Amino acid sequence: MTMYDIIEKKKNRLILTKEEISFFVNKYVNNEIPDYQMSSLLMAIALNGMNAKEVTDLTLVMADSGEKIKFDFNVVDKHSTGGVGDKTTLIILPIVASLNCKIAKMSGKGLGFTGGTIDKLKSIPGFNTELDLKKFIDQIKDINVSLISQTKNIAIADKKIYALRDVTATVDSIPLIASSIMSKKIASGASNLVLDIKVGSGAFMKDIVSATELGQTMVNIGKNASINTVAVLTDMSQPLGNNIGNALEVIEAIDVLNGKGPADLREISIELATYMVSLYHKITYDMAKTKVIEVLENKQALNKFYQFVQYQGGNLSLLKANPKYKYQVYSNKEGYITKINTEEVGKIALLLGTGRLTKDDSIDYEAGIVLNKKINDFVKVNDLLATFYTNKEIDLCDKYLNSIEISNQKTNSNLILGVIK
Amino acid sequence: MTMYDIIEKKKNRLILTKEEISFFVNKYVNNEIPDYQMSSLLMAIALNGMNAKEVTDLTLVMADSGEKIKFDFNVVDKHSTGGVGDKTTLIILPIVASLNCKIAKMSGKGLGFTGGTIDKLKSIPGFNTELDLKKFIDQIKDINVSLISQTKNIAIADKKIYALRDVTATVDSIPLIASSIMSKKIASGASNLVLDIKVGSGAFMKDIVSATELGQTMVNIGKNASINTVAVLTDMSQPLGNNIGNALEVIEAIDVLNGKGPADLREISIELATYMVSLYHKITYDMAKTKVIEVLENKQALNKFYQFVQYQGGNLSLLKANPKYKYQVYSNKEGYITKINTEEVGKIALLLGTGRLTKDDSIDYEAGIVLNKKINDFVKVNDLLATFYTNKEIDLCDKYLNSIEISNQKTNSNLILGVIK
Repeated sequence: MTMYDIIEKKKNRLILTKEEISFFVNKYVNNEIPDYQMSSLLMAIALNGMNAKEVTDLTLVMADSGEKIKFDFNVVDKHSTGGVGDKTTLIILPIVASLNCKIAKMSGKGLGFTGGTIDKLKSIPGFNTELDLKKFIDQIKDINVSLISQTKNIAIADKKIYALRDVTATVDSIPLIASSIMSKKIASGASNLVLDIKVGSGAFMKDIVSATELGQTMVNIGKNASINTVAVLTDMSQPLGNNIGNALEVIEAIDVLNGKGPADLREISIELATYMVSLYHKITYDMAKTKVIEVLENKQALNKFYQFVQYQGGNLSLLKANPKYKYQVYSNKEGYITKINTEEVGKIALLLGTGRLTKDDSIDYEAGIVLNKKINDFVKVNDLLATFYTNKEIDLCDKYLNSIEISNQKTNSNLILGVIK
Repeated sequence: MTMYDIIEKKKNRLILTKEEISFFVNKYVNNEIPDYQMSSLLMAIALNGMNAKEVTDLTLVMADSGEKIKFDFNVVDKHSTGGVGDKTTLIILPIVASLNCKIAKMSGKGLGFTGGTIDKLKSIPGFNTELDLKKFIDQIKDINVSLISQTKNIAIADKKIYALRDVTATVDSIPLIASSIMSKKIASGASNLVLDIKVGSGAFMKDIVSATELGQTMVNIGKNASINTVAVLTDMSQPLGNNIGNALEVIEAIDVLNGKGPADLREISIELATYMVSLYHKITYDMAKTKVIEVLENKQALNKFYQFVQYQGGNLSLLKANPKYKYQVYSNKEGYITKINTEEVGKIALLLGTGRLTKDDSIDYEAGIVLNKKINDFVKVNDLLATFYTNKEIDLCDKYLNSIEISNQKTNSNLILGVIK
């Protein structure tokens, strides 16, 4: 068996065996296969695809390439493919934990124009995301929930392969995305998993067809790895909720836990939490949903959030979201907002300081955008559309105006686009 | 402009501009683009293709990457995509030179299971293929013909890219093959060019469709580079002529120049030489063909061959083809030979010693195969099919028997499969 023959096979659209997949993953980790052969194979996979068995094999081999965490209790996990304004994890974790589900969450960094949960929590002064494994497990045993940065030893093959994909334009390949996510979930010990697959202009999957394919691929891998998996396809044709930016998103999450906050964010959070509780306790969707709404209404979830933040050292009374500059974007047209180029809005948020443009940048936790109007809202000329918060003197108002469309008719809009079990 | 964006474009089947092509070729030559990005792009090109303009741009940029030879006279060149037993260059060069066409031939090494002209000429003791450029040109001025190893400074981008393709399974891509060949022809100063595109089991192009595509691509590049180009598609479903192996092929070439030798080899040599003479002197195919047959019959071509060999130091009286071992393969069936797996036969010849299995191997110039029967010949059980000559004690007779098919009906067979102008 040689790497050359494996590349040749995939170039000719043939199916790779588990032995071949194991060969190239493990030899690549051990530096026995050079980057230039691996990147050639990755491009062949990106263009010619992989079947269900190949993707599962690739996932399992990558999961086995590093440390594997085993819990002596049942756990539930969630994963979002990433979107703009996506702070559902902050809402869902306390809901689910207050319903006696154990959730051991390891989070990666935000990718590109989407933010990461770790950065959002770090906007709370004192919040520590770097617990060691023992403290992590002890905390889950104690209060049902903990969230830390993903350890470096999980799925090391994925880490090395992802770094290569990132510089060779092979990130947006469904088999490579699916195996990357699922290998980390398997290695981090998930037994139940709810996937939030974002679809639309603010997500990596721009259309429902590719999102469905990604969801089916991941649910299928989950089945083969004995993880109860549900994928929910949710709308990302506009930012989720009204707030974008780290501290701003924490504030909005608390609003929802307080029974307030935007309807779209609340609905998607309830939906995802419901599937998590249903999987964990093996109860029906309707039973789980009743419980989820109950802990939101009686503030048990809110109190669980406070307990969780405090346990990891965070001090919410010190949270700041009042930066030096404030810019307001006003409408220059009358009509209904029918489109928001969400990726563009995410990039504006990045420029305001919400994320890192290069590896060495620091994050401005206070920076962000508040959307005053969203899709299907009616606006008049000079109505306030959005407010920018930043410590940089940078006027991006025109960029925002260019990223929205206003028409005289409303558009169709659905929050939950599909569920794959 | 970044290499990432160029890879992304080609992955998405978009057309690369000349600026983008120039960017990645030149930066790669200057080591400013890493192998892993280049191999990713090469796989994207191999799978998604290039249009006519892209291939021409790539060719011209690669031709410009190294030394460019200019002759102050008109020259004609030929190129074969490589086949088993293909010694036409040895026959065509003296034919064309004796008809007052100047031919400045630079040859590369044999690739894989096909032999190279350089090695064939080196089987003549004393023959020197390493002349400097001044001697090369002086010889052409003097006797119309010279043949040397391709200089290292020609199309250096092609050299570096080919080395990467060779280890990343991206050799058999039509735009990459076409631009590789044509960039070297442009850089080596050809003004007229006849391409011999081999089709069949002993060639890189296994079928007429891909061979036609390759031919059209190269003729089109030729037009755009002001080189008069004709591509002839010729049969390689069996070895050309009867002899395979370096000294054995020189002997067979002399047979043809002597008015003897196998009909298939004679016919293809006449065809290719005719197009070369026709292009060079701007005369009709029929006029050129009459002249070609004339110099074969009156031995002017044979005498030109002797002059050419002598001029480069070769001594034909010392040519040896009488190695230590001789193996004979006998038929185990009665019927017509309908198929010869020519690639397999080429590999048997390699094992007997005709070429290098690894870079460090030395060549046994005496080794080779004489085919006693070819396609559509009728054979009885125990009839002699082939004779192996080698200095190694290695019995490959069964391997040979396994690579031919004998049936009770003849098959269709055509030597010239198409001409593209």
